[in-house]
Parts: sequence; C-alpha cells; structure tokens
Amino acid sequence: MATRHDGRGRVDGTSEHSEAATPSSHFPASRKIYVEGPQPGVRVPMREITLSPTKSHPRGPIVAENPPLRVYDTSGPATDPNIVTDVRQGLSPLRLPWILKRGEYDQAEPSEHRHPALPLPPPRPVLRGRGPVTQLHYARQGIVTPEMEFVAIRENQGRAAATAGHPGQAWGAAIPRAITPEFVCDEVARGRAIIPANINHPESEPMVIGRNFLVKINANIGTSAVSSSIEAEVEKMTWATRWGADTVMDLSTGKHIHETREWIIRNAPVPIGTVPIYQALEKVDGVAEELTWEIFRDTLIEQAEQGVDYFTIHAAVLLRYVPLTATRVTGIVSRGGSIMAKWCLAHHQENFLYTRFREICELMARYDVSLSLGDGLRPGSIADANDEAQFAELRTQGELNRIAWEHGVQVMNEGPGHIPMHLIKENMDKQLEWCGEAPFYTLGPLTTDIAPGYDHITSAIGAAMIGWFGTAMLCYVTPKEHLGLPTKEDVKAGVIAYKIAAHAADLAKGHPAAQAWDDAISKARFEFRWEDQFNLALDPETARAFHDEALPAEGAKLAHFCSMCGPRFCSMRITQDIRDYAAKRGLGAQEALADGMAAKAREFHDRGAELYVAPNDVVVENGSQAGMRAVSTPADVALRKER
Amino acid sequence: MATRHDGRGRVDGTSEHSEAATPSSHFPASRKIYVEGPQPGVRVPMREITLSPTKSHPRGPIVAENPPLRVYDTSGPATDPNIVTDVRQGLSPLRLPWILKRGEYDQAEPSEHRHPALPLPPPRPVLRGRGPVTQLHYARQGIVTPEMEFVAIRENQGRAAATAGHPGQAWGAAIPRAITPEFVCDEVARGRAIIPANINHPESEPMVIGRNFLVKINANIGTSAVSSSIEAEVEKMTWATRWGADTVMDLSTGKHIHETREWIIRNAPVPIGTVPIYQALEKVDGVAEELTWEIFRDTLIEQAEQGVDYFTIHAAVLLRYVPLTATRVTGIVSRGGSIMAKWCLAHHQENFLYTRFREICELMARYDVSLSLGDGLRPGSIADANDEAQFAELRTQGELNRIAWEHGVQVMNEGPGHIPMHLIKENMDKQLEWCGEAPFYTLGPLTTDIAPGYDHITSAIGAAMIGWFGTAMLCYVTPKEHLGLPTKEDVKAGVIAYKIAAHAADLAKGHPAAQAWDDAISKARFEFRWEDQFNLALDPETARAFHDEALPAEGAKLAHFCSMCGPRFCSMRITQDIRDYAAKRGLGAQEALADGMAAKAREFHDRGAELYVAPNDVVVENGSQAGMRAVSTPADVALRKER
Repeated sequence: MATRHDGRGRVDGTSEHSEAATPSSHFPASRKIYVEGPQPGVRVPMREITLSPTKSHPRGPIVAENPPLRVYDTSGPATDPNIVTDVRQGLSPLRLPWILKRGEYDQAEPSEHRHPALPLPPPRPVLRGRGPVTQLHYARQGIVTPEMEFVAIRENQGRAAATAGHPGQAWGAAIPRAITPEFVCDEVARGRAIIPANINHPESEPMVIGRNFLVKINANIGTSAVSSSIEAEVEKMTWATRWGADTVMDLSTGKHIHETREWIIRNAPVPIGTVPIYQALEKVDGVAEELTWEIFRDTLIEQAEQGVDYFTIHAAVLLRYVPLTATRVTGIVSRGGSIMAKWCLAHHQENFLYTRFREICELMARYDVSLSLGDGLRPGSIADANDEAQFAELRTQGELNRIAWEHGVQVMNEGPGHIPMHLIKENMDKQLEWCGEAPFYTLGPLTTDIAPGYDHITSAIGAAMIGWFGTAMLCYVTPKEHLGLPTKEDVKAGVIAYKIAAHAADLAKGHPAAQAWDDAISKARFEFRWEDQFNLALDPETARAFHDEALPAEGAKLAHFCSMCGPRFCSMRITQDIRDYAAKRGLGAQEALADGMAAKAREFHDRGAELYVAPNDVVVENGSQAGMRAVSTPADVALRKER
Repeated sequence: MATRHDGRGRVDGTSEHSEAATPSSHFPASRKIYVEGPQPGVRVPMREITLSPTKSHPRGPIVAENPPLRVYDTSGPATDPNIVTDVRQGLSPLRLPWILKRGEYDQAEPSEHRHPALPLPPPRPVLRGRGPVTQLHYARQGIVTPEMEFVAIRENQGRAAATAGHPGQAWGAAIPRAITPEFVCDEVARGRAIIPANINHPESEPMVIGRNFLVKINANIGTSAVSSSIEAEVEKMTWATRWGADTVMDLSTGKHIHETREWIIRNAPVPIGTVPIYQALEKVDGVAEELTWEIFRDTLIEQAEQGVDYFTIHAAVLLRYVPLTATRVTGIVSRGGSIMAKWCLAHHQENFLYTRFREICELMARYDVSLSLGDGLRPGSIADANDEAQFAELRTQGELNRIAWEHGVQVMNEGPGHIPMHLIKENMDKQLEWCGEAPFYTLGPLTTDIAPGYDHITSAIGAAMIGWFGTAMLCYVTPKEHLGLPTKEDVKAGVIAYKIAAHAADLAKGHPAAQAWDDAISKARFEFRWEDQFNLALDPETARAFHDEALPAEGAKLAHFCSMCGPRFCSMRITQDIRDYAAKRGLGAQEALADGMAAKAREFHDRGAELYVAPNDVVVENGSQAGMRAVSTPADVALRKER
C-alpha cells in the first residue's frame, strides 16, 4: 500500500519548520513553500509573495525592506514546479500513511456499479473502516490527527498570531489569536467544524470548515446531458483550485458520472463533494418514482469508495413540507429537493433518505464521508425567502444533525439561495439556534433576482454578509447562473467574486490572518510599488492588464503616478509630500499630535463648541495651536521648491 | 427665451395621464412611455417592458396574460425613437418654462474664464437668481414645484402604490406606500432630500436624492492629462445614463475642462456634478499653494452658469485635521482633500473653503447648485477606516450642513471609501447623528483592498449594505479603480454593479416599487419564459448572450428546460408537475394546507416531539394525514403516465 509515485517532493524530516521554496509556476513573484508540523508528513503548502523595498523615488535609495507575505494556497501540487503532475496518474496520496496508522480497515471490493465506458486511472486499494473512522470520532477521544495539525498551521498562514488581527465583530464566533491543533480538535469534537477527508481520497490537502476559521468557498462543476466533457471538467476543477476554491462539488448529471468523478478525485488537492441522488437517478433512467433505497445505498458506497469527501443529501425534505411550496413564486428549485418531493408524492411515503437516515450515517462513518444536509426547499426567488417551507426543512436539518453526531458523522447544513439583505441574518440566527452550531454552507444568497448574467455579484453581496454573520463555507455562483453551464472563465469569475466575499467576511470577523494582506497591498499602493500591487492582487494578471491598458510602458510601473490623475495631480504623492514635510518638522510622533488635538478640542469646547467662524475671520489663528505650530511659516517656500 | 428646438416630442396637454408610447430603440420588448402630472409640462419618462403570456407548454394555450412592467428610466431622450437628438445641439430645455415662471433672474454675463479652444454648443441665455432660487427655498414655503411633482411620479414608477411593497427593515427610513408631491416637498424642506437642479441646466429630468426614496447611483467620468477625449467623455455620459446612472460627475483634470463640461451638460438628461477645485487648480498650473479664494469663486460662477447641478467642495478639511493623517497607511487619497491639505500647510492658514463658506453658499443659492460636502480625509484603505481624521471631518460636515441650510442651499454629505463590513454601519449612524439627516452619498465603500481589477465587486458589497442602512446615493466604482481610467465597458460594468447594489438596498428597505421587478423576472424564470427573463434583466443583451452560448437555437428559448440540467432533469419542471398534481387534487388552498400542517404538528408534538423515526419505520402512516391525505394512492400511476 505504498504511494504510487513520489511526485509531492522530498520531505527532509529533520527540522520542525523547514521550508522547501521554489518559484511558483503560476503566480508572479510567488514561491511555493511548505511549513512542517511536528507529526510526520505534515507539510502545509503556502504561497509566499516576494515584495520589493520601499524607496522615496523610483531610482532612489532603499528606505525599508518589505517582508514577503504568505497567503493560503488551495492550488495543490499543480503549482509546485518541483513536482511533475500527470493527470492520467493522479496526485500522490499524501494522507495514506496517516490513515493506515490510526484505523482498522477492510479492503473493500470494487463497487458493482461502475460503467467503465472510458478508461479509469490505475487501480488503487479501497478502504472501509471496521467502525467509525471520522475526524469527529478521533476528536472526541482527544486525538489530534495529522489532519488537524495541518489545518491549524494552514489557518495561521504561517504568521505569528500575535502580530495579526484586529478586534472584529464576529457575531458570536470566538476566533483565537493563534489557531492551535488542540483548538481545531476541540471545534471538531463539538461539531462546530468539520474536516472533510474521506479515507479513500488520500490525495487531498486537509482543510477545515467552521465559523471560527477562515471562511471557505466551494466551486461547482459538472457535466450535464447537454454539454461539457470529462477533460473539461477536470481542467475546471484544477482551474478553480488555482484561483482559490477550497472545495469542489462535482454535480455531473449526464453520462459517465462515475468516470468523470474518478478523474476529478484522483487529481483533486481539495475535498470533493457530490449529490449522490443525481447518479442514483441516472441508474433509473431519470424516473424519480423508480428510485429505491437499495439503489441509493449502492450509489453511496460506490462514491464513498471512490473518495468523495462530502455528500449532499436531501433528507430533510419531508412529505408534509412539499405542499408548502405550491403557492410559491418559484416552487422548488433544488434539483435534489424536487426529485425527492416527486418521489414522496408519487409513493405517498416519507422521503426514504429520512427514514433510512441512521443507515446512511452508519455507512458514511466508515469512510469518513462528511454529510452536507441539503436544503431541497430553499427559496428560488426573493419572493419566497424565509418562508414556512424553508424554515420547516431547516428545523428538520437540526434534528438530523444530532443523529449524524450520534453516529460520529461530521455534518454541515446547506442554506439558501435567494434572500433580500434584511432577511439574511435571520437565516444564520435560526441555523445557529436549531442546528447545534454545525457549520452553515450557503449558496450565495442572491440579494436580488433582476440581474441574470451578473449573479456572481448579486450573490457575493449576500455571501459576504452571511459569511460575516457566521457561515463557514460559501458556495459560489457564476455569471452563468440561471442561464447556462459555466465556462472556465465563468468559473474564475465566480471563484474571484467569492474569494472577495470570504475575505471581506474574514476581515469583519477579525480573523487574525486576514488583515495583513490588505495592509500589504494598501502600503504598496500608497508607495507606488506597482509590481507589488499587481502581485498581491487576488488576480495579478487582470490587475496588471488593466493598468497596462492605459500606461503600457514598463517605465510607468516605476512612476509615482497613474493614469487616473496624470503626472501632475496625484493625491497620493501630495500626501507623501505632506508626510515628509510633517516628519521634517518633527510632527511624526502620534503622541504630540494627540496632545495638540486634545488641547485644541478643549479650547474649542470652551468657546461654546461653535467650530465654524464667520467668513473673513481668524481661523488662521486657530491653526497655529499645539501640534500645528511646528508647520509654520516657511512652508510655502519649502513646498514650492519641490516642484 | 423659447426652447431652441422641439426634439422632446409633443405633449398633448389634455388628459392628466396620457401616454405617448413607442418602442424603445435600445432595450428589447420595451417602450418609452411618459406619465403626465397635473402641472404643465410634467411628463415623466419610464420604460415599459412588454411580457408574453403564461402557457402550460411552449405551444399550448394561454393560461394567463402578464401585465407589462414599468421601470425607472434614466436614459433621457436618447432612447426615445420619436426624438432626434443631436449632440452638437444638446437636449431640449424641458424645465426652462418652470424656472422662468417661479423666480426673478438677472441675465448673467458669460464667465470670463472660458477658453474656447474647441467649438462650443450654440449660445444660450445664462440665468442668475436675484435671491435664493433653490428647491429648498420653495419647499420651505410649501410650494410644490413641477420638479417635485416629477420626482414623485418617477419614484412610484407609475404603479399603484397599494399593490406594491413588503415590510422591509428600513433602518430609520420612513418610506410611504405612495410617494406624493407633498411628501417630496416635505422631505426637501426638512433637508432630508435634495433635487439637484441648476437653473442653467434646464435639460435635466428631475430626480431626488434622499433615504426615503429609491437609492440612486452616480457614475464618474472625466478626462485626465494622460488620456481620453471630449467626445469619448460625452459618449460615456450617455452610455452611463443608458444603463442606469442617476447622476454623472465630470471629474476632468486635463486640458479643455470648460469645453468638456459644456458638451456634457448640454447633452445630459441627469444632474451633473463636478469638483470645482480641479479646474481652479488648472488655472494656477497645478500649483496648489497658488490657489486663491478669488480664483475659486470665479470657477464656481463659471460652472454654475454652465449648469453644473452639484459641487463637491472639501470645506471640512480643516488645518488641524491634516496631521491626523500622517500615521495612516494610505494618508490622504482624495484629490480635493490633498490639494486643500497642501494649501493649508503651505500657507499655515485655515482652508479657505471653510472660511469663505457663507459666501460660497450665497452664490450657490442663486443658481440652485446643490452642495456635496466632500470627504477629503476619507480612508484609502481598510487599515485607515473610521479613524480620527475621517470622523473629525464628518463632524465638521454636519456643522457646514446647518450653514448651507441657513442660506437655502440643498446639501448632501460625501462618505467613504474603504471600510470593512463590521465598521460600515457606524458611518451611517454617525452621519445621521451629526449631519442632521442630510442625504449621505458614499463611494462604495470597498470592503477589502486585495482585489484590484474587481473593485466594482469589493465595493458593491459595501454599497448595498450602506444603501440599506440609509445612504441615499452610491458613487460607483469601476473594475479599473486604482489601476486606470475606465473605458466604456468599465463604465457599464460599474453602473450594473451599482444598480444591483442600489436595487438590493431598495428591496431591503421595502421601497414600494422595488419588489415588483424581482417578482416579474422570477415568475418568468419559473415559467420558462426565456425571452421575458432576458428582457427583464438589468442587462438584457448579456443575459441572452450567456444563454445562447450553450443553447444558441431559437427553439431553446421556447424550451421548458435549460443547459444547466438538460431536458430530462429539470427541477423547475418537476416542481410544476407537483404543483399541477396538487392543484388537480384540490391542494391549492393555502388554508387547507395550513390546517393540515397544524393538525400534523400537534400530533407529532403529542408523540413527544421526536420527528425522526427509526429506519424501516412507519412514516408512510404519518404522511396520510390531513392536508396530505388528498395526495394519496394513485399518485405514482398518474405521475408516471406524464413521462
């Protein structure tokens, strides 16, 4: 059961935090580095962006060096130039030694439901736990797994926690200044976080989903009967992780579901989620009424053996909730939800995903497949937001969470959808209250319906807000939502919009690692370090291309101005002049300024708090107080000489 | 003083609400209509989108007609095919009769500061009031001007107010179910709303800015020394209003400022704003220290005579606030703010915009130029948000508001900038508290700094939120922000992103006219009325193009499926099946359902509130209760036959 190949590079194994650094093949001025943890094989990938020094003038002397910035890296071995990846071989099974060491497994038989119409990757061992082998199972025993250690290092982004963070308003989240493996273990044990990590997907780099961690994003890909190919979907997966997708869901509904998924999982450095009912429906030729528990169970086993890390299961769509949707503007818009609703009505029986829920949990626990309880009755329009059907299902999700936890299954809850801004927080509040603090995983929500073609934006607004309120993972929406399947460019647009939403939420939550990135790029902007500004951007290529549209010459990237204002009229440069001038006159110390301001404030207050003085009056006099006195007379002369 | 030409079409003048309807030359399935008010010449343009009827099947019989939807129209005469517009002539002076009727004016001399290096539009009379001629001045006397009547009709979007709206959460706003001219008059009189309407810009179609009205958006355009031409800027203005810009600011800083502005104003159906200090600085060859009150005053007069509707004036950047910016990450990023800061430090005198503020107000009142008090010390990065410098200036803005009101000047306050989500509401709260409820007009705010190239998105998030909290107008940000001047495509991207933000805010505020649009497009989506869905989109062209990428055949636009799921697997169609089925069995009545649910809930509660039943259990039995009984046995047969 050795690794199939050694593509992941050599671990030196000696120093606790050694780093193998090489230039990234995908991002400018970036190196792929690895931070090692104490447990064997824990090597956490990060991208380190090199910054240039601060200079007073483009060709002037160096005023200060700027340390490199480390950012979270979801792109996997594909962006490590030391590793040769081969899509026909898949990635190296990084987690396999950890998995084998800690559990007892049966060698499973290959599933009977494979239809190898297309070639599959090389055969590999399939594991099945003899009992629960979930991260939750170990966490409850206080066992800190290598996965937990990995995500702790990853969440800190290699930074000393003491230097980071600001007092955000985390809406009930409690993010520590430094994320420790023990904290991760505790959050997983309490069901407040999950680490989706199927024992049959050892290629994945561990990540954590929970509201006391960085907000994560998911990208959906997948073939449909109408268009797209396997190769295109694997490429979309790699592409999505390159731009920052933390997990990828394969929502294929056409032919070759099994083969598409196999290729995706074997090449995926991130957890892969699916909606197994889609494949089950293919097995009964699309006739929902012919679905049976047995067909569904076999599909779960098939996918669990392949290594799917989380299953969306619409077990909370109950028969009695279905008629609640009849008077909606947009009825049921979830595919899984509508399949189960149709099945329920057709058989006049309760949803078999609900009646068989304990069996489902038992099965998933043996592979550590995490459960993502689907929201089959989510609203499909602003008009249907927060209605009875939606909240009835959410309450049932909460009940099912507790059963999943009984079985040691890691679980999160899916949420809407289409919600106007004033109703968003109610979703988060009810989920927290009813669902025992399990991670919330929302699709958007879209905050208006009127902009098809731009739903990455309508939904990024809602996603940022609900992320701030405590949602742990945001399922992206691409510009093609409601119109067609996303192309590669659409996938990128969706991922970038959602990285923005997630990062904005991290800032607002006060995650210790979030602020440093903003500060680095803002400082670069202010100091006209154009190259650094591009390299620090979420999308360096686009930032550079936009700048170059107006000022293509290389020299412009050294210039202390930009095309917005032209060379003579730059507010940033004027500010620097002011700052230099103030510094020369000894105005740099914040204390002196504060003292001066306080004195001035008192004086104005004593005058009767009337700050405005009639025209032609003596405000000059007001200016010559305290902290301002030092900026006195020769100023105009000094400044004029600089021109 | 007759109108120069009669391009605006004939008003029949007989019936109170007659409508001249013609197909729009710019939007598919749309007609330009006019709704008339009681006062002469009040003809409010709207776009009416024609919808197709609901059918059960693409070629089936009509089930129901769908009434056309009227939407707010900022595009002016350019989209009326009955009107021949000529950019070299400008638009017809629609408001001139109203202006002449109500005030006393001097015929002003042409400003001395014109530099007609380029040809100017035909000469026109220049008006100057003999005293205040502002909308505020009239409102305080209880005079309902035609402008007020116009905006009241416009805000209602031609809809009966009783049919619209939902209980939003307006954060202290008090939007009535129907906007009446008297309500508009009262809001203007209280300073809570402004109608920017320079007496020398009679071509503009009146609009209102205030938090009890629809959220408005502004688009910035303008030449810089580095690039762009006059023709390109006029075209950008027209383009911006076509996509929905409610006002346009001309921020030109290069040569030919006067001529560029003249062409823009004469062709603008929306209010035009400027930052007069930019032109004043050009007059002293860019040397901030050489600015004088006299040069600035003459510039104000020059621009007021041209017809600029609002001036951004950085009068609240006080000398003693400047050092507060020295320790910021990004210092002063406002051009106007940095110019005045430099002037203050150089002369060691208080900002002359502050010391001369009463003179400025007196002058502006005579042209009804509205005042937009600039935020010269707004934060330029997340790190600098809500700091002492920013809030010191905001407090001074509030003091200046009261002086503006003393002089009868309409005033609003500009706001930031770069603000993380958790600090946004504090901005709105302080502005309401300190600034006497004057309209707030914010730039974004951007909620993170790390995405240059996508700042229309980083800022749409903040803009939607602050709009919901009560900001009256949102200044757009384009994808080129921080990188270069926006192209025409960037202007469109910025406008669309901000229409989304503003509309999301209107929905959340519960504006009576907002929800209908979302409901219309959602209903069209659910009923597979593809053409209607495209035509109702903010950007019909893009929505159609995205759909056609996957399914280009004309037949696909009649199909009851889309490329996302393919023909066999559509949740919307399954939902319709469920709905049809439920209707057939008499399940349509909401009351019956509610009764059934209540009975069921009681029964479950009596059982011990344990909804989950062990596997292989009798949930079938549970389903056969009350409202669910009707969906009983023959269901599977019936549904299977439909396939």
